[in-house]
Amino acid sequence: MLRNESLDSIFKPSSVAVVGASANPEKIGHIILKNMVDGGFKGSIYPINPGADEILGRRAYPSLLDVPGDVDLVVVVVPAKVVPSTMKQAGEKKAGGAIIITGGFREIGNDSLEQEVIDIAKSLGIRVIGPNCQGVNYTGSSLCASWPLIKAKGKMAIISQSGTVGAALGEWAELDGIGISSCVSLGNKADVSEIDLIDYFSHDPNTGVISLYVEGTGDGRKFMEVCRDAVRRKPIVVLRPGRSSKGRKAAESHTKSIAGSHRIFHAACRQVGITSASTVEDFYDFSKALMCAGGRRLLPGRMDPYGVAVLTSSGGSGIIAVDCAEEVGIEIPDLNEEAVIRLKEALPSHCVVRNPLDLTGDTSAERYETAVSELSSSTDVDAFLLIFGDPIPRADQVVARLKSSLVSKNSDAEIVVCYIGGGTIGQEEALSMHRQGIPAYPAPERAMRAIGALAGKF
Amino acid sequence: MLRNESLDSIFKPSSVAVVGASANPEKIGHIILKNMVDGGFKGSIYPINPGADEILGRRAYPSLLDVPGDVDLVVVVVPAKVVPSTMKQAGEKKAGGAIIITGGFREIGNDSLEQEVIDIAKSLGIRVIGPNCQGVNYTGSSLCASWPLIKAKGKMAIISQSGTVGAALGEWAELDGIGISSCVSLGNKADVSEIDLIDYFSHDPNTGVISLYVEGTGDGRKFMEVCRDAVRRKPIVVLRPGRSSKGRKAAESHTKSIAGSHRIFHAACRQVGITSASTVEDFYDFSKALMCAGGRRLLPGRMDPYGVAVLTSSGGSGIIAVDCAEEVGIEIPDLNEEAVIRLKEALPSHCVVRNPLDLTGDTSAERYETAVSELSSSTDVDAFLLIFGDPIPRADQVVARLKSSLVSKNSDAEIVVCYIGGGTIGQEEALSMHRQGIPAYPAPERAMRAIGALAGKF
Repeated sequence: MLRNESLDSIFKPSSVAVVGASANPEKIGHIILKNMVDGGFKGSIYPINPGADEILGRRAYPSLLDVPGDVDLVVVVVPAKVVPSTMKQAGEKKAGGAIIITGGFREIGNDSLEQEVIDIAKSLGIRVIGPNCQGVNYTGSSLCASWPLIKAKGKMAIISQSGTVGAALGEWAELDGIGISSCVSLGNKADVSEIDLIDYFSHDPNTGVISLYVEGTGDGRKFMEVCRDAVRRKPIVVLRPGRSSKGRKAAESHTKSIAGSHRIFHAACRQVGITSASTVEDFYDFSKALMCAGGRRLLPGRMDPYGVAVLTSSGGSGIIAVDCAEEVGIEIPDLNEEAVIRLKEALPSHCVVRNPLDLTGDTSAERYETAVSELSSSTDVDAFLLIFGDPIPRADQVVARLKSSLVSKNSDAEIVVCYIGGGTIGQEEALSMHRQGIPAYPAPERAMRAIGALAGKF
Repeated sequence: MLRNESLDSIFKPSSVAVVGASANPEKIGHIILKNMVDGGFKGSIYPINPGADEILGRRAYPSLLDVPGDVDLVVVVVPAKVVPSTMKQAGEKKAGGAIIITGGFREIGNDSLEQEVIDIAKSLGIRVIGPNCQGVNYTGSSLCASWPLIKAKGKMAIISQSGTVGAALGEWAELDGIGISSCVSLGNKADVSEIDLIDYFSHDPNTGVISLYVEGTGDGRKFMEVCRDAVRRKPIVVLRPGRSSKGRKAAESHTKSIAGSHRIFHAACRQVGITSASTVEDFYDFSKALMCAGGRRLLPGRMDPYGVAVLTSSGGSGIIAVDCAEEVGIEIPDLNEEAVIRLKEALPSHCVVRNPLDLTGDTSAERYETAVSELSSSTDVDAFLLIFGDPIPRADQVVARLKSSLVSKNSDAEIVVCYIGGGTIGQEEALSMHRQGIPAYPAPERAMRAIGALAGKF
């Protein structure tokens, strides 16, 4: 497919100029420069500002042309009318990429100015993100030419037509200790589109899952074609609002995208193997699960039946999970007779041996280990949902051991965790699970829906 | 109605004995005593343990009968077989209430022992919570005879047949700065049931909303009768799992409740004016919204049409909210011509004046104030959803001013907030909004569904 190597200037530059860098902490030109510096970018950073000698401890230059040597990437925060001349200067400095944060182009009807910028960029061989966008964060290069500053390195590549939705996902991933590989704000997509980026990230070794928020895709056929190829390497999760008639109108007005039929889009997604989310939380939760599952769920075609064994310390949470499973289309298979006998032998008599398996409130973390071991040979269990209700010390260690034990048995079974009511112990253990590549969710339904994503139900 | 004044001994005791208090930090008998002490209970606390002189700095007594003077409330953590004799001693000390944490009764088939305990309690005039429960927290008395320790005082009264679900709600309320008035774990409901507690909390001045997790209600007719009366004073939110066939079976096995028909239960709830949640997050989110709305939504009968004006700094989040509105049955009314003219005059030209109203990413908090003022006379706006995407300084102050301005105009319109992608500023401002009685949610759909609860759509 495309293999957009030309995008390397954007994601892996040696030198970056921030044109419109500012000493005023309230200006975007300051925030971007600060995030580049605080983010720890290792290459050269050149603030461009005719009125300053130094900004944030970096020598500033009056114009791009004053920078010594070449500039790989230009981040543009100057007013719209100055952008064409800036791009020409970027060409002189042999830049290969530009991130145009500046607004005031097609989104307000200024199509001709946008076209002028793109014509210049194309003639000079400069790839452009934006204009009218929230920038690019690529943690593999410690390059945060965007906001907020998210430094946590991880495998989630976020591509978003909404700056806020992208930022929210990044923040959640950071709070969860999962981190991101990238967060790209698409803006007006005058040059680089989600299609280029999906292809790029599908070949990116730092990326494990591609999470796309998009309000409209320009060339639907090409989009699906690129995704069909990309999902062979990396799972893709899409959130595309505009399901309702009013939502669709708002989407068209927001990004001047032609939203097209939602039903047709999602049917095509399913056929191609893209996972569709319909809420922001699902979008994040599904991405997290697919990322943790690694390459094992590359083609999330519908798996029927997909069976889950639910193990819980909280009877109520187990029931809630089972309700949700039915709605998602997940099986909760009855335990076979042998498994029941083995479990009754292995567990204290007050445990309720069925599926959901109630290990009861006095359980230790180790009791989960005993139970999973007894069930790990069951052929109808595709995933284990482990619900920890209340703080359960060492749950993270037990879950890690279980995961490596399944791997060593060549089992494909997934482990997904719900940690609910665990207080600070639960929060810390959930972070530790994330560091070990096991997704943990704060409510049973969120965990079960995430399993649904692994099973190709969305 | 009932006015269970006899429950005052449980929630407002002057003296509490913990029978089975332990010096071993891993024992429940230690945790409960510690939470009573750390929770700041002002009355007398008597640890009962024949092998200790002192536990956690409190003088311990060999038996209940050795305590000087009377004991109002007895918290029981001793083995099941000793519970009957403990209850007799509680009677001698003129106790009016007992919280029996101990398990090993009806839930494992030991019906006769449970009956014996209840017969003794009834004959001595002792009201009993449990057995087999996670205790009682009542912040109005700083009484946490339960775990986890939640000290944040608020207006949410949680009644739960699942210890974990109750604890999770309490934890979320604490993290949100909302707090709780009470959290009661029902256990086997051998004496005090959700029916008694709904009636009690509906008369409790510390309570603003009653949040009930229940797997089965014994006397359905009486339950609905008491709720019909209680919702005239306080909104009630119910989460009752067991919708699916497997979930129902698991519920019956978990608490030996006869789950009955889910459909009939929810139809009855709607008729009576109870708000039904179907996920744990909805359960919490709805409770929070109804609590913040105070007494204004006492009878959440279906309000049609219910119109919401969506104001957002994030175009994408606005679209997402509008999609969700249609699914919940909420109207997003078009702005009338006059409002459009006024807003176009009052707002910068790049704002998108429609519903959802896109104030765009460069908005200040004050721009929301301008817009809401222009819309506050619209008769078809029953609620404002304010979406803050990215950190927006002073959003909390603006929201507070808007709320008091609506109140001073005698407007019934609600304000609900979604704060997404706001980083630490957003988190702090959301807490501040909660302290001012304005509910804030981390995703647009959660905010819109909460509005649905205010509109009687659930």
